[in-house]
Amino acid sequence: MANVYDEAYALETAIRNSNDYKELQELYAQLQADETGKKLFDNFRQVQMSLQQKQMQGEEISQEEIEQAQKQAQLVQQHDVISKVMESEQRLSQTLTDVNKIIMKPLEQLYEGFDNENE
Amino acid sequence: MANVYDEAYALETAIRNSNDYKELQELYAQLQADETGKKLFDNFRQVQMSLQQKQMQGEEISQEEIEQAQKQAQLVQQHDVISKVMESEQRLSQTLTDVNKIIMKPLEQLYEGFDNENE
Ligand SMILES: [Ca+2]
Ligand SMILES: [Ca+2]
Repeated sequence: MANVYDEAYALETAIRNSNDYKELQELYAQLQADETGKKLFDNFRQVQMSLQQKQMQGEEISQEEIEQAQKQAQLVQQHDVISKVMESEQRLSQTLTDVNKIIMKPLEQLYEGFDNENE
Repeated sequence: MANVYDEAYALETAIRNSNDYKELQELYAQLQADETGKKLFDNFRQVQMSLQQKQMQGEEISQEEIEQAQKQAQLVQQHDVISKVMESEQRLSQTLTDVNKIIMKPLEQLYEGFDNENE
């Protein structure tokens, strides 16, 4: 019987060897070499995170902040490498979300079965 | 090269076949057959969840609620099957936390490497 940890490491290796992962690695390297692009991207990330944090903490976000964020989003989308980075990140993130659903299924089913029989 | 989804399903199977998973399945079946124990456990779960929710929403938790929850926790710990269920759940949950760390490592390292080179 395959050990859970062995299988987890096998999955980790499969992720590292996946085309999506290698592509993102390559795109990051390209962006790293592009000083202006990297700054643009870092700035975009920071603004996104600060807005998310404000939202989570229930702080108000001004109309000006929203407009600035939108302008910045348009700007990064026009940047060839950055737009590719963002698409690639989204694909990898979707795969990892799927993977998480797959491996949480056994526990989920156990809880469901346990709960429902008593209702 | 092994496909990410194939490896995820192999990991899922390993989880289902693990001793910890089978043990928890068996313990749930035992608790299901014990009407009083099952009610005690369901009640305990509900109180825990409601307290967690209050905490997350920043609502105040009264001294009385805390004392009730503590009494209930003592009660379930004295129940043989329930205390085993709780230990078993904790073991499985620790394994899944470890697994999650293992499979998130590649992405984490990618981000770290990307970030640090520019600092
Ligand atoms: Ca239920
Ligand atoms: Ca950094």
